[in-house]
Amino acid sequence: MSQELTIALDAMGGDDAPQIVVEGAAIARERHPDAKFIMFGDESKIVPLITKYPILKECCEVRHTDKVISSEEKPSQALRRGRDASMGLAIQSVKDGDACAAVSAGNTGALMALAKFMLRTMQGIERPALASLIPTSKGESIMLDLGANVECDDENLIQFAVMGAALARTVLHLNKPSVALLNVGVEELKGNDMIKNADRVLRETNLPMEYVGFAEGHSLAGGDFDVIVTDGFSGNIALKTAEGTAKMIAGLLSTAMRETVMSKIGYLFARSALAGLKDHLDPNNHNGAVFMGLNGLVIKSHGGASAGGYASAIGVAIDMAQNDIAGKITEDLKNFERHDEEPEESSSEDKMPQEKVS
Amino acid sequence: MSQELTIALDAMGGDDAPQIVVEGAAIARERHPDAKFIMFGDESKIVPLITKYPILKECCEVRHTDKVISSEEKPSQALRRGRDASMGLAIQSVKDGDACAAVSAGNTGALMALAKFMLRTMQGIERPALASLIPTSKGESIMLDLGANVECDDENLIQFAVMGAALARTVLHLNKPSVALLNVGVEELKGNDMIKNADRVLRETNLPMEYVGFAEGHSLAGGDFDVIVTDGFSGNIALKTAEGTAKMIAGLLSTAMRETVMSKIGYLFARSALAGLKDHLDPNNHNGAVFMGLNGLVIKSHGGASAGGYASAIGVAIDMAQNDIAGKITEDLKNFERHDEEPEESSSEDKMPQEKVS
Repeated sequence: MSQELTIALDAMGGDDAPQIVVEGAAIARERHPDAKFIMFGDESKIVPLITKYPILKECCEVRHTDKVISSEEKPSQALRRGRDASMGLAIQSVKDGDACAAVSAGNTGALMALAKFMLRTMQGIERPALASLIPTSKGESIMLDLGANVECDDENLIQFAVMGAALARTVLHLNKPSVALLNVGVEELKGNDMIKNADRVLRETNLPMEYVGFAEGHSLAGGDFDVIVTDGFSGNIALKTAEGTAKMIAGLLSTAMRETVMSKIGYLFARSALAGLKDHLDPNNHNGAVFMGLNGLVIKSHGGASAGGYASAIGVAIDMAQNDIAGKITEDLKNFERHDEEPEESSSEDKMPQEKVS
Repeated sequence: MSQELTIALDAMGGDDAPQIVVEGAAIARERHPDAKFIMFGDESKIVPLITKYPILKECCEVRHTDKVISSEEKPSQALRRGRDASMGLAIQSVKDGDACAAVSAGNTGALMALAKFMLRTMQGIERPALASLIPTSKGESIMLDLGANVECDDENLIQFAVMGAALARTVLHLNKPSVALLNVGVEELKGNDMIKNADRVLRETNLPMEYVGFAEGHSLAGGDFDVIVTDGFSGNIALKTAEGTAKMIAGLLSTAMRETVMSKIGYLFARSALAGLKDHLDPNNHNGAVFMGLNGLVIKSHGGASAGGYASAIGVAIDMAQNDIAGKITEDLKNFERHDEEPEESSSEDKMPQEKVS
């Protein structure tokens, strides 16, 4: 099987695996006619599902394993016992060059641990980061880290910025994405030397990104910047807060629209307009978080993604594989180091935005 | 002027001061007929505004000062020059016992610095925290710290929990509020000993709160818990992310409702139902962040609050003053220390919720 556009799928990962995985692959195959798949998991469950999709069947190999990593398994357990489970085998196939990317909707902690251990980080990258597209009022932005590292230093943040910019160039097709560091926007920050240092270094780069300084939480949904960089603790909380808020409002809106006879009639008229909004906010349409900075592509799908959502995650994998994101990051890191070694004259003035909590 | 229910107002703080302050006080006076006010600021601007509200005029004293703290001023500058500005004088009047609480819509960093310096923290509290009501799908919850401390330790988080619970008992009128620590929900957290330690101590308390363990970002808007405790960095980002997301969706919804003739008709029918939703999400209706843990009550209004929003902030001040929140916190801290000194037998099993990034 050719490595070109072959995607390894952990067929047993996710709430409704392997059904959603097979259906998702079938949808992805329609969207990307060049794609091929290797599915890892229980043959007796997968094969009957695949037979429903003759086109998928033609481009899909199934490799059997009985072993599955459960959602309760700890990363340390996964490392000990998971390398020959469906998730571990999918990652291994990327390492072996059988596939150009792996997709899993399984246990995030296990996937992170296995991917990092089996693929190792790229040269110049200390820690991998979890990145994802997020819906904004202007379209989509990229945010990282979403939880791979609950504690970071300034060097990590700088590397996240480089990786995030490369991802934006690939997935959002931008030449020079704008990049911001997430901050509280309070001046004279106590003890936040990490962010100040990262800010200072990023201001001096000449990489293919437009570094714009600090962004506040408002900017995430506002879509003010293409890439938002933060540590994994704040990033995870911000992402889930945004998702939770969207869900709350959707729920309140739905209740409001059912409240009175008048509002029910209103809903009938506005239904198709509201469907567009719902579509934009649906996490399935932004599915596919990427483990950045590894020697190999690994994509995490939401555990509860729909088949269409799973297909979106496969789409991210294909997009990244086709656009040689690893090459872009490697090149940027090289340029970055060169710039550090031969500093140009730069303004010593540290222009920190003066903002306030509001 | 009696100290009882006298509120000191920084009449010059906020985007549209002193107009919004005077209008807000007039609305608050209607809601709370016992309230009296002392307004600090430029007499020549304030007095003509007050004359429009005869009832307010009867219960409002104006104390003149030319000095104002601008929104650009740094906390360090405010400490040097702001004590005789309208903001500093309002705080001083609380310290002197002339007023039972101060409200300002001015520069947050300056207010925080002045309040902390002039009023000092309560015995047993290392650092004050900024707390606020946030709208949820079930009503309102309290979140703290929202940005007073960008770096915290476990002891700070424990004190925030005690203060947040006291606030919930006062403002949400609950006997035993549920309290959770905001976390990423990943098991085997690296380096997050701060949260683990705070969790362990809080599990052993017998204070008037129901400590429930960790909460993820989803839970904020979900209203799963009455009090959400976090460090000021994550809390500030979460709050602004939630506000930004709500604003984005409101904008998209408004666009969707104007998109087609059909949706415009739908809007006409659903308008009053949608108004209720808008009302619930309007930050003005949850206005009034509280600096917890000081020897005196200081309330921060949004800088851009409407008159109704400013009145809400005054309402929070009155509610807290009437319910002796300082007394509650002091009592809880005493009980807490007693419990620490005489530990009961407690389960040594550390039940950490096993959750994953999704």
